[in-house]
Amino acid sequence: MTSLDELPLRDDLRGLTPYGAPQAPLPVALNVNENAHPVPEAVIEDILADVAVALDGVNRYPDREFTGLREALADYLGHGLAADQIWAGNGSNEVLQHLMQAFAGPGRTAFGFAPTYSMYPLITQGTGATWVAGTREDDYRITPEDAAAQVAAADPDVVLLCSPNNPTGTPLGLDVVEAVHDAARGIIVVDEAYQEFAPKDAASALTLLPGRPRLAVSRTMSKAFAFAGARVGYLAADPALIDALRLVRLPYHLSALTQAAATAALRNSRTMLRMVDEIVEQRDRISATLEALGYAPHPSWSNFVLFGGVDDPKHVWQELYDRGVLIRDVGIPGHLRVTAGTEAETTAFLEALASIGSAS
Amino acid sequence: MTSLDELPLRDDLRGLTPYGAPQAPLPVALNVNENAHPVPEAVIEDILADVAVALDGVNRYPDREFTGLREALADYLGHGLAADQIWAGNGSNEVLQHLMQAFAGPGRTAFGFAPTYSMYPLITQGTGATWVAGTREDDYRITPEDAAAQVAAADPDVVLLCSPNNPTGTPLGLDVVEAVHDAARGIIVVDEAYQEFAPKDAASALTLLPGRPRLAVSRTMSKAFAFAGARVGYLAADPALIDALRLVRLPYHLSALTQAAATAALRNSRTMLRMVDEIVEQRDRISATLEALGYAPHPSWSNFVLFGGVDDPKHVWQELYDRGVLIRDVGIPGHLRVTAGTEAETTAFLEALASIGSAS
Repeated sequence: MTSLDELPLRDDLRGLTPYGAPQAPLPVALNVNENAHPVPEAVIEDILADVAVALDGVNRYPDREFTGLREALADYLGHGLAADQIWAGNGSNEVLQHLMQAFAGPGRTAFGFAPTYSMYPLITQGTGATWVAGTREDDYRITPEDAAAQVAAADPDVVLLCSPNNPTGTPLGLDVVEAVHDAARGIIVVDEAYQEFAPKDAASALTLLPGRPRLAVSRTMSKAFAFAGARVGYLAADPALIDALRLVRLPYHLSALTQAAATAALRNSRTMLRMVDEIVEQRDRISATLEALGYAPHPSWSNFVLFGGVDDPKHVWQELYDRGVLIRDVGIPGHLRVTAGTEAETTAFLEALASIGSAS
Repeated sequence: MTSLDELPLRDDLRGLTPYGAPQAPLPVALNVNENAHPVPEAVIEDILADVAVALDGVNRYPDREFTGLREALADYLGHGLAADQIWAGNGSNEVLQHLMQAFAGPGRTAFGFAPTYSMYPLITQGTGATWVAGTREDDYRITPEDAAAQVAAADPDVVLLCSPNNPTGTPLGLDVVEAVHDAARGIIVVDEAYQEFAPKDAASALTLLPGRPRLAVSRTMSKAFAFAGARVGYLAADPALIDALRLVRLPYHLSALTQAAATAALRNSRTMLRMVDEIVEQRDRISATLEALGYAPHPSWSNFVLFGGVDDPKHVWQELYDRGVLIRDVGIPGHLRVTAGTEAETTAFLEALASIGSAS
């Protein structure tokens, strides 16, 4: 049998293992920040009707400019955005990859404040650029002054700001975005994958887009929209920035089925998003209960909670696993991360954790 | 308004325009080698039933390893292939991109015999590698000796062999594949996107896979399968080579809808492929009629015909366009390319061309 070492693999890939949370078929899966609530039956019917239309013409290539989907995304985001300010891909990872290919890539750098979304360094490296990690305060916050100083010193080609931050849940103030933007010469991406779980009065970085053509705000339908399986990420930015992404995307990157399904889901956004409040409630219940159990949950504006005070994360992770509950060891010493599930799933997690009794 | 020039775009992208055939809504579109025959109604019903099941769980991420689809693809290809020898992506372009990221990329080279598929140089450049173009005989054929000599001289990290070749339709002998493989130290990709349109007794490069872990054979569901809108490309290779692709793919790159739709379509492969003979008949009719009209069609094993003897390709293209027929100017002097459509579409093209009467 041939081993990977015998093939002419790139040197920088040798010894790596593929990204990936375990895909274990456990009863309670709270490890990848999915939305635990299935899409309502009525919406599925509506989506299927549009997918049927798409299948009628599936022998033809899809609309390369996914015009209908872009219009639907612009409508959903509001803020006066138009279709020519919207881009989309097979998950926000692909959208970020397009950004990296256009503005980073070989010989350039991308920057983010660690710990942050674990795919950022991988997408950066996968497109030939170098990842540079900045630092955060002890509570994972970033001040505008410190952020601007770090970015000015690193002088990156692309800055990735995860807001709220994954895997910590930490909110990011728009003052930080403004300070980083003004301190950088490169592209600033605010990744708002979890924005819909923030307080209703929390302003989005979308409000900062006018007059800032180097700023992009990315979103996903995977989380609040309960559409992780459909793989739809998107971003809003100046039309000139969108033009740049068109230079690097593979033609017809979004299938006719994806375009149809996402457009139909967006038409039902009110129904799709109605579980957000329920998830936020479970998230806050997790934080309160963890605190009562002696753990140290970090403030979260997302659909998950990072908690400290765990003596032996690997042990606790395994004990929960053995009780049928899958959460995430994100590699931060003394910490674990859990997604807010349904009320029943959340209860199962909290009871399992209480039965282990391992707060330090 | 901001222009693209004002953004910190990569230098190597400055001045480029996006890839893309015109998306003109003409009555007869024979420009992108689509299958003109829609998917049969009964198959659509079957696909929709599976997509409905996928939508039920679409709040969860899809199977990152697309196990069911890989099994279905292995079954379809035959040749004793197993699921761990199969990879897939959103179109064969993405599959090739994964190959380039793993085995080419910054500082490395990819090689092909020009003229060939126009996306090869773009995917190569998009992943930071350098494209090196070899040459063909006047009739676009390649001999094993010449191919081996060119590859040995160029010493590329990846060789792309399009078989049959796009945009020329030229068959490629397995003796050429073997000679190139033995002359190269890098990865050899045989792109069999149009293989199903070759004569039934033409051997596939799949037969060469055993004992050649540096060889990969890519296919697509876009052409013979009439599934261009669903974006499914795939390849077969040694399991070690597949492992390498797993290092560079974005996690969950294939949506649950794509996996469900493609798997259902493969279950109906006999029905899906039943229009292939009809398309081959139209292709041969195009070649015969073009010859009678005084043009010089090249032998084709694909679903399209490249023909020479065109005095002014831009003019003829425009004249056909004005008559509602869209074909492709692939940039080869004195040539145009046309896809074999339905019998009616093919007739419309041939009559329109005859009415122009421009053979040189």
